[in-house]
Amino acid sequence: MACSCNNKPSSLVPAELQQELSDPNHPANLICELCRLFYDLNWVTGTGGGISIRDVEGPNPNLVYIAPSGVQKERIQPWEMFVVDLPDTIVRTPNECPKELTKSYKYKPSACTPLFVSCYTLRDAGACIHTHSQNAVMITILLEHEKEFVINHVEQIKALPRLEYNESTKKVEKVGSMENYEKLVIPIIENTPHEEDLTETLEEAIRNYPGTSAVLVRRHGIYVWGETIWKAKVYNEALDYLLELAVKMKLAGISTVRE
Amino acid sequence: MACSCNNKPSSLVPAELQQELSDPNHPANLICELCRLFYDLNWVTGTGGGISIRDVEGPNPNLVYIAPSGVQKERIQPWEMFVVDLPDTIVRTPNECPKELTKSYKYKPSACTPLFVSCYTLRDAGACIHTHSQNAVMITILLEHEKEFVINHVEQIKALPRLEYNESTKKVEKVGSMENYEKLVIPIIENTPHEEDLTETLEEAIRNYPGTSAVLVRRHGIYVWGETIWKAKVYNEALDYLLELAVKMKLAGISTVRE
Amino acid sequence: MACSCNNKPSSLVPAELQQELSDPNHPANLICELCRLFYDLNWVTGTGGGISIRDVEGPNPNLVYIAPSGVQKERIQPWEMFVVDLPDTIVRTPNECPKELTKSYKYKPSACTPLFVSCYTLRDAGACIHTHSQNAVMITILLEHEKEFVINHVEQIKALPRLEYNESTKKVEKVGSMENYEKLVIPIIENTPHEEDLTETLEEAIRNYPGTSAVLVRRHGIYVWGETIWKAKVYNEALDYLLELAVKMKLAGISTVRE
Amino acid sequence: MACSCNNKPSSLVPAELQQELSDPNHPANLICELCRLFYDLNWVTGTGGGISIRDVEGPNPNLVYIAPSGVQKERIQPWEMFVVDLPDTIVRTPNECPKELTKSYKYKPSACTPLFVSCYTLRDAGACIHTHSQNAVMITILLEHEKEFVINHVEQIKALPRLEYNESTKKVEKVGSMENYEKLVIPIIENTPHEEDLTETLEEAIRNYPGTSAVLVRRHGIYVWGETIWKAKVYNEALDYLLELAVKMKLAGISTVRE
Repeated sequence: MACSCNNKPSSLVPAELQQELSDPNHPANLICELCRLFYDLNWVTGTGGGISIRDVEGPNPNLVYIAPSGVQKERIQPWEMFVVDLPDTIVRTPNECPKELTKSYKYKPSACTPLFVSCYTLRDAGACIHTHSQNAVMITILLEHEKEFVINHVEQIKALPRLEYNESTKKVEKVGSMENYEKLVIPIIENTPHEEDLTETLEEAIRNYPGTSAVLVRRHGIYVWGETIWKAKVYNEALDYLLELAVKMKLAGISTVRE
Repeated sequence: MACSCNNKPSSLVPAELQQELSDPNHPANLICELCRLFYDLNWVTGTGGGISIRDVEGPNPNLVYIAPSGVQKERIQPWEMFVVDLPDTIVRTPNECPKELTKSYKYKPSACTPLFVSCYTLRDAGACIHTHSQNAVMITILLEHEKEFVINHVEQIKALPRLEYNESTKKVEKVGSMENYEKLVIPIIENTPHEEDLTETLEEAIRNYPGTSAVLVRRHGIYVWGETIWKAKVYNEALDYLLELAVKMKLAGISTVRE
Repeated sequence: MACSCNNKPSSLVPAELQQELSDPNHPANLICELCRLFYDLNWVTGTGGGISIRDVEGPNPNLVYIAPSGVQKERIQPWEMFVVDLPDTIVRTPNECPKELTKSYKYKPSACTPLFVSCYTLRDAGACIHTHSQNAVMITILLEHEKEFVINHVEQIKALPRLEYNESTKKVEKVGSMENYEKLVIPIIENTPHEEDLTETLEEAIRNYPGTSAVLVRRHGIYVWGETIWKAKVYNEALDYLLELAVKMKLAGISTVRE
Repeated sequence: MACSCNNKPSSLVPAELQQELSDPNHPANLICELCRLFYDLNWVTGTGGGISIRDVEGPNPNLVYIAPSGVQKERIQPWEMFVVDLPDTIVRTPNECPKELTKSYKYKPSACTPLFVSCYTLRDAGACIHTHSQNAVMITILLEHEKEFVINHVEQIKALPRLEYNESTKKVEKVGSMENYEKLVIPIIENTPHEEDLTETLEEAIRNYPGTSAVLVRRHGIYVWGETIWKAKVYNEALDYLLELAVKMKLAGISTVRE
């Protein structure tokens, strides 16, 4: 299992890959750094959640790094990533690594892969984060019969981007930031037994809500994307802050929408 | 007391043991590492809880390392473990260590020892974790007259193993993972004045619930086991996540079972 | 974006600035240290909040260091500060830094700048902290129709300063500490779409409440100031502790004022 | 202020004191280590709380080390302690330290000093911890008209000592541990404007409750003591765990006492 390699000397990693990973801002290193942060926030415990980064500043901006499935997110190592050339060509897997590193553990691509790819292709995202945040799950339970989470009149809403469909480029583009008095609307889709089966409804939600940067999955978690990994992280933090507040408001009998 | 040795140079440890402990993945080292993590999660504060690992990859897979009783779990040192050759032969105790290290502190085996041994013998477990998690205690208080904790339709359920009794091997075996829509059922047993007196009802629960990877003890905590220490940790994290969510749902008047 | 420079060698910073920043108690270094602490407390996640320090012990006590707008607070670097000579002369901006450090990121002064300046000019503050603390936001929501937060009979109130208007100096001055039985009163002002538009009502609140060290902004957060950065930090911690307690009391149906 | 010395080289400390403090288990070092831990637990934020250790294993077991008043607990340095020879002779104060270290900050002994001394003289304690824990404050608010906090039938109660008055030695002595089904009773005393004025009622409570290891102070916090600093820490952790659980139970409408 991946984490048993935690203390293996990195000298077992092929020299070329070692060289590539020597940059602390390499997508594979950032995924590891952020997974440890997200673990401490209880967003990816129990192997839950996932994260992927498109190499937007690298030589091939269509390369996407994705953490593998079913491993302890806070213990993954940079050489354990799957690398996909968009839309769907797997160009490297951790299973190619020396056996000494993997103990013959058979890595599987994240079940989130098709969902991440949807965010990349439909929105030109630079990174996509999926968490099992308790705030995300709890709000979808409190809104059991709603198809949207809506909140307005909270300052933190300003951390989210204002997105608009551009008729000429046929793309959803960032045109600024939201105002704190505006209604932030995040669609809620129903969970499915297999994560990949969420793809269709996720894509539908992304298309139907051109203004959203995230989709909630009922009793499951949230998908958040952004232009870069840092933007995706900031949007995710701001959304989780708003979801935490919204759960408290709902439990106190206060509407999250002030007319 | 154990923790006062926290800063003693390890050179006082016998050379052979030093050599053995030089591997960071040695069971005794992993117990220390995980106890610090569990302390931060408020699972083993006040000397509560316990942890043991069977050396499944070592030369004698019947050797079990167990943290001692009544010591601060976040401060234990790798040489402070009791080592048991299953089913019940104590082959090493920290009381054999040089007095300079122990200040004549008299270590006692964990009161959980017979319970851990039950998990090893009845389920071939590779590790067993016992915490005093507030979520575990609180759910058993909210379910004061129930004998089971049941939850379904939450994604995190998929982190738990699907277990089945194999007629031919006469063993409970892992045959996959649970589905997110399935009912996860964890038996609740009543607490007793002395931890070792839980053994009989714990074993009864393990036998009556072949599908479970854990047993809740009312107003006390939870026992969780797995094929390896990492699996046990992941199951424990996933269960605590579900218990945390379940407490919130109960307090909000929402059933944890959706029909 | 600022944080992508996180791992750049500081050798890119001009030599003179490097020398200046070699003192760990330099205001720019303290801002970075405290932003990391405040991030862990969920006070400045999602680029929210802000902090500024007046160089009260330096050669020019009118110099104010301010973290820039819209960046991840836990990742800012000491050379990224705006420096203002009170009342309003910008004497240094991070945009003057070498491009290798900034990747041409265009820093903007914090939107809190005029509010910070108000605290410096109206109260001779040595530092001013602005957080999006959930406790601050939640209490203003629970007190939706109130213009003040009031609490008494809690020991932690003693951590707040007793302030009085001095007729001869025409200044509000610290004359001791509050008593634990006294009413602590913090004014609540209404939020505005643009942070700088809060300036007028913030100043009005500061003038109308000579005894306060803080102003709550509804559905937004809190502004706290003090004689030094350490006093401002202590006042902020004590206030957040009281706000956390007050939210719990309100939700339990208990008045925060005991007659 | 104390914390501005945080990064001063310890070479400014007199050589003899440096030598004394080179032992990481020296009471002054342990106070600093535990204050940082307690700060992270929100027990001593805003300069609240206090801690003192009697040098039970040193040459003079009547020497008591006490953190000073009004300083940030997580930033105190080992040379900043007051040292008292019981019952009340101050034998060292941080004000004797070189000015370069103190910036002429005038240290005051902790207002808790007489209360700590009561625990040492009435109970032969080896250490005494005072926190402003929100769980302690909240339970005294929920039990506004009660003079005792009582809880039974929780496993964690076993972490608390069984104390009995010994007629022959005229002392309260530890005779074992509590049972998990027993009633743990902690007296609640009323707060006073000045901490030292709590001394009389604290002593009365200690005398009237020979079985207690702690006293709750309404809307203020808790005093906990033990045979050694590690015992005091463990009792404090176990009590805070029980107080946290009790607050949840009360808010859920469940009695903390099961008949």
